[in-house]
Amino acid sequence: MITFGCPDRTGIVAGIATFLAEAGGWIVEAAYHTDPDTGWFFTRQEVRADSLPFDVDELRARFEPVARSLGGDQAQWRIDDTGQKRRVVILVSKEGHCLYDLLGRVASGELDIDLRAVIGNHDVLADITRAHGIPFHHVPFPAEPDPEARAAAFDQIEKLVDEHDPHAIVLARFMQIVPPHLCERWAGRALNIHHSFLPSFVGARPYHQAYQRGVKLIGATCHYVTPELDAGPIIEQDVIRVNHEDAVSDLVRKGRDIEKVVLARGLRWHLENRVLVHAGRTVVF
Amino acid sequence: MITFGCPDRTGIVAGIATFLAEAGGWIVEAAYHTDPDTGWFFTRQEVRADSLPFDVDELRARFEPVARSLGGDQAQWRIDDTGQKRRVVILVSKEGHCLYDLLGRVASGELDIDLRAVIGNHDVLADITRAHGIPFHHVPFPAEPDPEARAAAFDQIEKLVDEHDPHAIVLARFMQIVPPHLCERWAGRALNIHHSFLPSFVGARPYHQAYQRGVKLIGATCHYVTPELDAGPIIEQDVIRVNHEDAVSDLVRKGRDIEKVVLARGLRWHLENRVLVHAGRTVVF
Amino acid sequence: MITFGCPDRTGIVAGIATFLAEAGGWIVEAAYHTDPDTGWFFTRQEVRADSLPFDVDELRARFEPVARSLGGDQAQWRIDDTGQKRRVVILVSKEGHCLYDLLGRVASGELDIDLRAVIGNHDVLADITRAHGIPFHHVPFPAEPDPEARAAAFDQIEKLVDEHDPHAIVLARFMQIVPPHLCERWAGRALNIHHSFLPSFVGARPYHQAYQRGVKLIGATCHYVTPELDAGPIIEQDVIRVNHEDAVSDLVRKGRDIEKVVLARGLRWHLENRVLVHAGRTVVF
Amino acid sequence: MITFGCPDRTGIVAGIATFLAEAGGWIVEAAYHTDPDTGWFFTRQEVRADSLPFDVDELRARFEPVARSLGGDQAQWRIDDTGQKRRVVILVSKEGHCLYDLLGRVASGELDIDLRAVIGNHDVLADITRAHGIPFHHVPFPAEPDPEARAAAFDQIEKLVDEHDPHAIVLARFMQIVPPHLCERWAGRALNIHHSFLPSFVGARPYHQAYQRGVKLIGATCHYVTPELDAGPIIEQDVIRVNHEDAVSDLVRKGRDIEKVVLARGLRWHLENRVLVHAGRTVVF
Repeated sequence: MITFGCPDRTGIVAGIATFLAEAGGWIVEAAYHTDPDTGWFFTRQEVRADSLPFDVDELRARFEPVARSLGGDQAQWRIDDTGQKRRVVILVSKEGHCLYDLLGRVASGELDIDLRAVIGNHDVLADITRAHGIPFHHVPFPAEPDPEARAAAFDQIEKLVDEHDPHAIVLARFMQIVPPHLCERWAGRALNIHHSFLPSFVGARPYHQAYQRGVKLIGATCHYVTPELDAGPIIEQDVIRVNHEDAVSDLVRKGRDIEKVVLARGLRWHLENRVLVHAGRTVVF
Repeated sequence: MITFGCPDRTGIVAGIATFLAEAGGWIVEAAYHTDPDTGWFFTRQEVRADSLPFDVDELRARFEPVARSLGGDQAQWRIDDTGQKRRVVILVSKEGHCLYDLLGRVASGELDIDLRAVIGNHDVLADITRAHGIPFHHVPFPAEPDPEARAAAFDQIEKLVDEHDPHAIVLARFMQIVPPHLCERWAGRALNIHHSFLPSFVGARPYHQAYQRGVKLIGATCHYVTPELDAGPIIEQDVIRVNHEDAVSDLVRKGRDIEKVVLARGLRWHLENRVLVHAGRTVVF
Repeated sequence: MITFGCPDRTGIVAGIATFLAEAGGWIVEAAYHTDPDTGWFFTRQEVRADSLPFDVDELRARFEPVARSLGGDQAQWRIDDTGQKRRVVILVSKEGHCLYDLLGRVASGELDIDLRAVIGNHDVLADITRAHGIPFHHVPFPAEPDPEARAAAFDQIEKLVDEHDPHAIVLARFMQIVPPHLCERWAGRALNIHHSFLPSFVGARPYHQAYQRGVKLIGATCHYVTPELDAGPIIEQDVIRVNHEDAVSDLVRKGRDIEKVVLARGLRWHLENRVLVHAGRTVVF
Repeated sequence: MITFGCPDRTGIVAGIATFLAEAGGWIVEAAYHTDPDTGWFFTRQEVRADSLPFDVDELRARFEPVARSLGGDQAQWRIDDTGQKRRVVILVSKEGHCLYDLLGRVASGELDIDLRAVIGNHDVLADITRAHGIPFHHVPFPAEPDPEARAAAFDQIEKLVDEHDPHAIVLARFMQIVPPHLCERWAGRALNIHHSFLPSFVGARPYHQAYQRGVKLIGATCHYVTPELDAGPIIEQDVIRVNHEDAVSDLVRKGRDIEKVVLARGLRWHLENRVLVHAGRTVVF
């Protein structure tokens, strides 16, 4: 699969399509977009591997001059072998609904990933994780503010995560704020699920905030993690209707069903290289 | 129709139901709610007028001691004759979609109201209004900041509105900020449609803000007008999905369909006395 | 909790509310409805158990004459102690997504039920069920049409189910057609999830049917099981948008997320006695 | 704008993209799809007219050999000048909500079409149509079954429609069944709005059917008119939630808001050549 971005000009589609046609590539799915604001061109091309007479490395080598000729120094592109399973690590705290949901999708084969590990700052989700045959690591965090202990815990998480070189690090209701240097290190690979329809109700206790404001719909947002809290590029959002009969506890319960599905969709799209980021916004092909 | 609110205690439902049963009232629709946060009890009772052996004034007189016995000094209630058409005044600027929509609903009989007047700070919507047989008043506003001319314009609007003693003053994409003294005067009767899913994107150009943030759904909010901008009690909200292919102009276009329907629903519920406000939030029966 | 239904007339609400008020009952939630078509009155009253000076059996005994005086012979009512956990049995085949979802809700405490057993006509879901500490029974069905073996298998299922006297029998993508005598025996307690927006696409392979018709939304329906296939009273439905890019396999995948949430909602409402059936339709309070 | 379809094979995208690039065409929007079932390839290419050094006729002449080389005899394609306003005729009966909605969209400039005429088998919508400056033709239909009079009325409608050679004939709640020869004549240009979520509730009184079945969502469907009633290719659908409190009259009222928006979207997409039909299903680019 090829994703490619550069400043728009005529002939890019023709250039890529001709390259693939000459290589005999059978395009399974192709998508194009130009952002009218920034003039940035995006494309994603899914090619059947067995239609090509060479391997992925050779494809990369041959595409390199094409990419340069079309986008010069600004060209951003990657070619991935989607036949290879994607490595994923999940971070959790106590709330299990997103983890249960992802484990169920993996178990049923819907989400065909290599789930390497689940890491929790609490251990309440250890048993269910291990029952699915997935390693669980408990990394306790200090109960009281203690910058040093907190930094040490994140160092341990960083080590546990990075040894898998994961395509995605999923914050599945992980209730600790990731430090800036890890946001940078995992840029474009760390996905968070926030339990509000961002940009409303940033930060803590969004369902309480929603209740106080009296909104008639609540939502959830899957976004890339960036150093600024809950401000990263949005991958997916959805909402559900609520009304005056819903107490905060009902919002929490109803919201979970939205969180689960929004996170699962966002993760799938990310792992299929459907999500391209430019200027703080995403294109989802 | 009776709406009633007071601090909750046992026996309120029995008290009201027994009062109505003894009067022979045929309850068409009844709704009850207690807010767990504030302990406030709300009810709305729709009674068939012809099932009562007396008129609305007599019903009010007879209900008064019942209301006092149930809620004491804190009881808040009103009894309206829904057989009487509700008087409505609409304020507009240049954008016509909400006005067209309301005029169409009135013309088709779906919205069975006494639409007294449309007032615009521009006159582009005068012709279509008058084609529907509704008076249109043009009250120009100063193009440059001019507090005195602006105040004079609002004085004129106040006079034009208040002569109809309307049950609802509808800000149908009226692009002027209503001064605090009018917000107070029209409290609980002035409805605004804001073109975002509040509390996101308060103020000017919400679709531009939504585009910049890269949200995946856009929305609209119908709320009561209060002195704090876009912060009044929310009556209704809805959203529509957008994606990276949508430019700001597409958001504007798609959003209109949500604005129209959200405003129409909010207005209907308001005129049917379905919306009860307490602690900055609404109960919509 | 009291649910009550009878032909409508004046004074029913007053009668029930007065009865509860005199008993000192604190009404947590009350709902009323009269069907305009059939003239049938429905109510559901949730009363705090600790607000009553007697137990559930005494409440039943005291309510009996009230019910008779309001609804005569036609009165239909029940009083349940919601403090008691509801017993549930789940039937499955090979598809696990609904089971995974329900197990996750039970494990997280969201669905606070007494899940007695899972019964499968295949055993692929045995391990995950037992990992959650729930007994799994494998009841094989004949691969070829064999009415006797099939009847024997259903006899075994009947025995396994009935020994738990369950409040709900959940067909969580159970791919065998329940024989009429079991539909009768489990009437009002057996819930099915059908993977289409009924009444469209009754019977087998609804996603294939939906694909062939080219619909732009697909759905799922939770309904009570009746002898006529997929024709029982509908408890809940929902839909999700699809488009021309979605192959049948995409419909299957996207549909699962709707099936799960529709079944979970329907089951919750059923167990909370929120679903009242009359004339083939449901009232969901 | 170019739309093109043919059996899929490698090199089609490259062929079209190279043709456009060599002509200097600036592609504003491009979409591709291959139906996995039928192996049919679809594309739509929106090119800025001023980026081409020749006119639409010349573009057609030059594209013809390209189309033939890519798709042979089976190639289906058209090139339209989107700078030219699309001609539309609307057919109505008594229900005005879809007509009001379309007139409002035309008046506000949102729907930038050449609305040539409105034709009604009743005249109740004549005044509002003329108030918008659009000609209205009243073609009365026989009240009692009278095949000859009915055929004569349709002959008159055919004449009134065809003199405008419209790009779209919109049945905006036109309550007469179009005879097969007109369905053929207007194939791919006549759009109907049906007030149900097809294929549920084909034919008359779908809201009554929906009420009787007790569905929890109602919908509307915009589809191309074909000789088989309500069975044409679906362009767009949407739904809205209803519940037991909604009488048939409420379904009718709520459904109107869905009908209006579904018809408006379907018409827009049709007029922008976004809707391609193959094997009874639509691709909507």
